This record gives sequence, C-alpha cells and structure tokens, in this order.
Amino acid sequence: MLRVAIQGERGSFSEEAAIELLGRRISVLPCPTFAAAFSLLRDARADRCVVPIENTLAGSVHENYDLLLEHRFWVEAEWNLRIRLMLIARHGVARRQVRQVYSHPVALAQCRGFFARHRNMRPVVASDTAGSVKMIVEQKSRDAAAVAGPAAAAAYGAHILARNIEDHRGNFTRFLLVRGAARTRPGANKTSIVFATRNIPGSLFRCLAVFALRDINLTKIESRPWRGRPWEYLFYLDFLGQPERSPGREALAHLRELTSFLRVLGCYPRSSLR
Amino acid sequence: MLRVAIQGERGSFSEEAAIELLGRRISVLPCPTFAAAFSLLRDARADRCVVPIENTLAGSVHENYDLLLEHRFWVEAEWNLRIRLMLIARHGVARRQVRQVYSHPVALAQCRGFFARHRNMRPVVASDTAGSVKMIVEQKSRDAAAVAGPAAAAAYGAHILARNIEDHRGNFTRFLLVRGAARTRPGANKTSIVFATRNIPGSLFRCLAVFALRDINLTKIESRPWRGRPWEYLFYLDFLGQPERSPGREALAHLRELTSFLRVLGCYPRSSLR
Repeated sequence: MLRVAIQGERGSFSEEAAIELLGRRISVLPCPTFAAAFSLLRDARADRCVVPIENTLAGSVHENYDLLLEHRFWVEAEWNLRIRLMLIARHGVARRQVRQVYSHPVALAQCRGFFARHRNMRPVVASDTAGSVKMIVEQKSRDAAAVAGPAAAAAYGAHILARNIEDHRGNFTRFLLVRGAARTRPGANKTSIVFATRNIPGSLFRCLAVFALRDINLTKIESRPWRGRPWEYLFYLDFLGQPERSPGREALAHLRELTSFLRVLGCYPRSSLR
Repeated sequence: MLRVAIQGERGSFSEEAAIELLGRRISVLPCPTFAAAFSLLRDARADRCVVPIENTLAGSVHENYDLLLEHRFWVEAEWNLRIRLMLIARHGVARRQVRQVYSHPVALAQCRGFFARHRNMRPVVASDTAGSVKMIVEQKSRDAAAVAGPAAAAAYGAHILARNIEDHRGNFTRFLLVRGAARTRPGANKTSIVFATRNIPGSLFRCLAVFALRDINLTKIESRPWRGRPWEYLFYLDFLGQPERSPGREALAHLRELTSFLRVLGCYPRSSLR
C-alpha cells in the first residue's frame, strides 16, 4: 500500500484529496506541519505527499511552493476539491440536542449563516476540523457536534446531521500529489514552473512571449517578491503542454535564456473545477 | 476624528495597520467580517476601511478583491506590516507563572519553536489574537498568557513578556486603506487594476504589451479563474504610474481595447517591505 503523508488529522480535507487522487487503498500518514509531510517523503518514510497549493477564497499557499522548491520533488497530479462543511455528531445524538459546535475558526466563520439560523448551537473554536470530530467522539459528548468535511465523519464513525452548511459554494482547494522522482503520467497535459526575473520593465513580457509566440495557453501566472532578494520576483506559471515535447520543450529552452532561475515542478493531467 | 472600519477586535493587526496609515487620532470600528467593514463604508457609517490584501506566507485575500470590485471603492494607500507575535499577559504575571497560552491557531502554529523551548506553556486555541488578550485581562488570569501583536497589549493594558516569538521573520501582510470616492494623494506612484481576458493563447501577452511597450514597471500580476464564468480569467495587476498621467493613461486606454472588463481600484504611494 502507498504511504501518503498529509498535513492534518485523519479525515481532513487533505485526506479527502488523497483518496480522490489515489483511491482508498492507501496508508495515510498524518503530520503536524507541511514541512513534516515533505520531510517524510525526503526520508523515504512516505511514498507521496498530498498538499494544498491554492484556495479560491484564500489564495496561494506560498509555504508549499517554497517547500517544493527546497526539496526538488515532482508534482504528478492535481485535484480541485470542493470544500463542503458538514455538521457532525456521534451516532444517537439528534440535531435538537446539540448545544456546542466545535471546529477551526475559519470553518466556523464560513458557516455564519447556519449559526444565525440555529441560535441553540454555540460555535466553539478548536485547532482543526477533523480533530474536532475525533474529540467529540472520544469524549462521548451527547450535546456537542463538530464542523468538518464528510471524510471526518467516516474516519471516526460519526454521523452527519446536516450537509453543506457553508455560506459560499465557490470554495475549492487545489491539491497536488507530490513524489520524489520525476515521472510523467500518460495523459499529462499541464506543466507547473517557477522562475525569477530581474525587475526591469518588460522582463515578464519577454518571458510570456516565449509561450505566446508558440500559441501555448497559460492557466496560472502569479508574481511574488523573492524573500531576501530585494527587487527580484518569483513567478508561478502553469501552461498547457509538456516540458519534454514540442512546443513546451522549446518554450522552456527559450525561457531559460531570459531568467535568472527556472525550475519545472511537475507535469500532470489537468483537473477541472467540479 | 476619522472613523475607520476594520475586521477583528481592537488591538488586531488591522488596527496596527490603520494606525501606521492614519496615525493614532482615529476612531476604530471593529467588525466581525470583511463584508461588514465594507458595508459600514458604503452606508457612510465609516469614513475609511483598512483590510489585508495579501500575506507573504498565505497569499492574496481574494475575498477583499471581490469586495473591492463589488463596492467600487478607491484604494488611497497601502502598508506592508511585519507580523510580529508577542507573548502577552496581565501586569504582575511573570513568565514562569504562565501555564496556558491562548491565540488563533494560525498564530500558535507560527510560534512552534517557542513552545518547543518552553514546555511549561501549553498552547490553547481561541478565535483570534487580540481577543485572547482581551479575554485573559477580563478573566484576571494569573497563569494565562496570549499570543498577539504589540497593539493588543496596548489596547487592553497588558504586558509583553516576550517579543517576536514567531518562527518566520519574513511574515508581512499588505494592508489597503480604502475610501468611498476616488481621490489620488500627492506622491501616488502605484496603481492597482483588475481586468479580465478571454482565455485565448497570447491574450495575457497582448495585455502586458501595453505596459512593456511604454516601459511601465509591474510590481504584481496574479491570475484567478473567474467564478461562474468558465474559461475566463481575472487578473490583478499593480504598475508603477498613475491612471490619469502619461504613460499610465495611454496604457489603460490601450488595455481597454483588449479586455472584456477593466477596473482601476486605486492609485497610491508605494510602501516598501521593512
């Protein structure tokens, strides 16, 4: 069985994404931090790690871009996970019995409308979503519930009292499946790169020309000040194509002439928003 | 006194940014959500609002870009705030007495090294940073502390036991000062815009050409799928220049020919990372 490192508890959204990407026959290794999940992969104590890279409401997770650069790993797949929040309690606990509802403050904040309609339930902050489900199950609470994803209910043998209680339906997190050695799957049609340019007028324009002149489509471009290197910028760019095949290969060779730093993070099949 | 709406409690990082931007002679109006802060400005119950737009570790706050687009407000200043975390307790409580340390889970996670070195202190999650300081002061705790920014200690008459206990020093949040009507301050040299293009190869390239051809420098570019409009992208772009003066004026006129949507969010003096 594939050993898959994730940040967070069993039943977290990272585990949901890992199952979507690899199926249920995996051994999930929960880690306290993203850095710890990457370290397990580096030390060959995990075969893959699954990490969030951007969220439609909260933006890119720069920490995981940094860890991808630091470790020189390979992205072999992506998955856009719709973030659905459920009201979860122990079996036998009915909705009208619930007085306290535990979860991460961000998850509680995303259910503001639900709590406004259910004044008998008091939101209480906890360290994370899946961990709140674990806690109410272990404590055998009869008047407590938790807000978490559906996988958390399954992971701890709990019961879903209400589905999709989040305010925003357009909440997606894009997860990456990361492995140690570069290996491109059949059907891979999207490539992620990071590069740096000097901050001179037109330098980004020239970098994008290498794609435009070859009719290569971009699906993401994001700039970020390069920490510790004033006036230099890092760019995250995703394009439709492969680094080893025309015209992606020629575009990357051309880009190398124009940049002070260039790294291919991976090549994988494009996932849709669903 | 200027009435300034912020998301969060008194003493939060948003209040720190508001003071850096406007000085201490302001009346701060704490709001539970970003949407509530923007609503106060719309209803003329606040004169300004101060909101975070991006963080060096966590990325852009898309929700506030959405709110800026929805309300047609004007960005008149920016501030890059270094996120410094302090160990804060009531006056008279010594460091060795502290057993529980309350804060938002993200702030606690950013002080992992400090808690590893101080095993006698147990981190306990709470809804927010400044609110934790408020709570330990109100409860008159003799063995509790909180993790928050320096403004929280001042706001609630508490005492800083340890400074800069965060693991990462490169943690900055960029805040925007927002007002209802467009008015550009003297010294304004940076402009923020949002635009949309059809997702055809080279469309972004042509949009950037309008700046490159005029030697206009970009300080930020970020793409984002436009929710509810499949295959269309929104772009956030900041450039050095003014929308009403050459060559910024001509660049925006040119960009209008190439985009399906274009909005100038504001023009303001550039803030450095310090």
